[in-house]
Amino acid sequence: MSTSSTLAEQVVAAIRTVVGTGPVALHEPSFAGNEWLYLKECLDSTFVSSVGKFVDRFELELAAFTGAKYAIAVVNGTAALHMALKLAGVKVGDEVLIPALTFVATANAVTYCGATPHFIDSEPRTLGVDAAKLRDYLASNTEQRGGQCVNRVTERVIRAIVPMHTFGHPADLNGLLAVAYDFNLVLVEDAAESLGSYYRGQHTGTFGQMGTLSFNGNKTITTGGGGAILTNNLELARRAKHLTTTAKLPHAWEYRHDEIGYNYRLPNLNAALGCAQLEQLPAMLSAKRELSHRYHAAFAPVSGVKLIGEPEQCQSNYWLQTLMLDVEHAVQRDPILKATNEAGFMTRPVWILMHELPPFKDCPTMDLTGAQSLSQRLVNIPSSSSLVPVVP
Amino acid sequence: MSTSSTLAEQVVAAIRTVVGTGPVALHEPSFAGNEWLYLKECLDSTFVSSVGKFVDRFELELAAFTGAKYAIAVVNGTAALHMALKLAGVKVGDEVLIPALTFVATANAVTYCGATPHFIDSEPRTLGVDAAKLRDYLASNTEQRGGQCVNRVTERVIRAIVPMHTFGHPADLNGLLAVAYDFNLVLVEDAAESLGSYYRGQHTGTFGQMGTLSFNGNKTITTGGGGAILTNNLELARRAKHLTTTAKLPHAWEYRHDEIGYNYRLPNLNAALGCAQLEQLPAMLSAKRELSHRYHAAFAPVSGVKLIGEPEQCQSNYWLQTLMLDVEHAVQRDPILKATNEAGFMTRPVWILMHELPPFKDCPTMDLTGAQSLSQRLVNIPSSSSLVPVVP
Repeated sequence: MSTSSTLAEQVVAAIRTVVGTGPVALHEPSFAGNEWLYLKECLDSTFVSSVGKFVDRFELELAAFTGAKYAIAVVNGTAALHMALKLAGVKVGDEVLIPALTFVATANAVTYCGATPHFIDSEPRTLGVDAAKLRDYLASNTEQRGGQCVNRVTERVIRAIVPMHTFGHPADLNGLLAVAYDFNLVLVEDAAESLGSYYRGQHTGTFGQMGTLSFNGNKTITTGGGGAILTNNLELARRAKHLTTTAKLPHAWEYRHDEIGYNYRLPNLNAALGCAQLEQLPAMLSAKRELSHRYHAAFAPVSGVKLIGEPEQCQSNYWLQTLMLDVEHAVQRDPILKATNEAGFMTRPVWILMHELPPFKDCPTMDLTGAQSLSQRLVNIPSSSSLVPVVP
Repeated sequence: MSTSSTLAEQVVAAIRTVVGTGPVALHEPSFAGNEWLYLKECLDSTFVSSVGKFVDRFELELAAFTGAKYAIAVVNGTAALHMALKLAGVKVGDEVLIPALTFVATANAVTYCGATPHFIDSEPRTLGVDAAKLRDYLASNTEQRGGQCVNRVTERVIRAIVPMHTFGHPADLNGLLAVAYDFNLVLVEDAAESLGSYYRGQHTGTFGQMGTLSFNGNKTITTGGGGAILTNNLELARRAKHLTTTAKLPHAWEYRHDEIGYNYRLPNLNAALGCAQLEQLPAMLSAKRELSHRYHAAFAPVSGVKLIGEPEQCQSNYWLQTLMLDVEHAVQRDPILKATNEAGFMTRPVWILMHELPPFKDCPTMDLTGAQSLSQRLVNIPSSSSLVPVVP
């Protein structure tokens, strides 16, 4: 690689050595297994909608894969977050701690409960919430009143904390669980991006009171649209199923609903796709790990940028492969985005930080210098599992 | 038919003459067309999720079929109602007029906006809102303040009215449009049950500012789970698409959301099913109409009960065939439900009225004697289009 080439040119060249010539999508689904078979079986059964054996099977298999006692399939990851927060006791007027560096669904779900997102900082090691910095912030800015964590400035109860496992890299769960415990916060994990990611050998999404998954088309496995709530608590699992199925009480013909419910059921058709995808998840995870190795080798000689690897004692699913620019090269981000997309390699920066979006500009925040620095320096590069041909 | 047999026995016998021996479901989907072809095409394209040609096509074909200028496909009928009410300007603290006799989704969607359902009465002629009675009620109980309709008792603004076309029979739209106009209410039609139903030659769901459809598994056509918003207003259509797709501004790689949005997109996989189902809708509607004729003949000699027919100047889709017991035979409803279900014919009563459900027991209501009488006397009987073999 010529040392006189620009950083953007070097990034394009490194991507090309791994994925060949473009165009290459950022993340494409792969349907190499029983997808057709199960969809046909679903159609032939006529049970395409809210009841059916694929929904039950998908829930059981998700629980088995993640090690959660219960999995409740829902219509998408946003719905899963909404329900998990509601079940966590988030009420109108509460605040919920969420990273500024996340996809907008995390913040939206908080507002659906009538609560306010309170944005917290992230660290470069995990791309997730900075637990140590958060502890200091909460110690200085909140107080405990009657077993509740109260924001001294807004006088609102801070009910919960929702770490998100960015691009599939587990956040500092031990640090965050300790913060949640010490400050009386319910911990709900936004594991939308981390199916197949483990923290100290345990699957992400199973540490908090609840965890949520997403099976959107851009995720590691997809159901078209879909999501799930994970929990080890039977009562929460029952409540989640009830609330997401219009809160209807079981009866042969009577329509009695005992609370305000939601139509958040995953259709059986989408669950059929999910069952087929789950069968291929281990192979996909291997492929994504191998892709990371190949990118790592390709980017090793490129100075000014490094490929994000899994945090210590973690196993990442490598959902989206991510480059981090050195601080002094942050100005190269946009030229890199432009050059890679023009070369047919779909890349993108991290999301605009939540507190910079119009609907959330007046929400409370802690110091966000960590997230701000990351937001200028991260670039996702093509990450589909199909980029690494599976060797049988 | 022996005159000494009970009414329940006569109902069982009449159903049997039309549909044969059981078990017969209340309403089953039928996949007799291109369902499998389109699902396979969708899978092969890998575009199973939120973007894809089937979503665009389904929207265009829904608009063409209903005569609405715009159709926006969403994840289910509840989501469609939620968005339509939000776009209609329903705000926290408002009231929305909805029939007490409806499925719970209508009431739930009102609460998702932070508003309160205000329950209104229904008439036996259409099974829909009693426009004349509503006019008198509003004249006595509301006043206009600054162009808004204010409930004198609660002091809240009544923002909108949501008639629902029960079991596919169009409500008294002319009467309701006049009430909406005279009292400054936005009219949103809950047309979840009435795809293929016309009022004076115009498709239901296209009279109000917006209308909403459902494609749940029990509806005339299904997408597994799905719904749509209909409107003739370009700006509302644009806003509906924007709000239901996380309010993201178009950009090659940037994630900028300019308001609080929702993840209410219909996946392309479900839209593929919908496109195939729409092709068969005319045949299904013919079959359902023929089924009504057959039931009509079978029930003609049964005294004490009559089959609901389409209202004057209306064309109903006959989504669910419905028996109405004479007032003096209302006590026979439960024996009829028991006898029919035991005979393998799935039947059900109408929903429990909304104001009788725990979450809505404190909501404002007008006199509901019409709905109360209907709720004791209606029984839905097997209604699948597949019960009438299609003659090519």
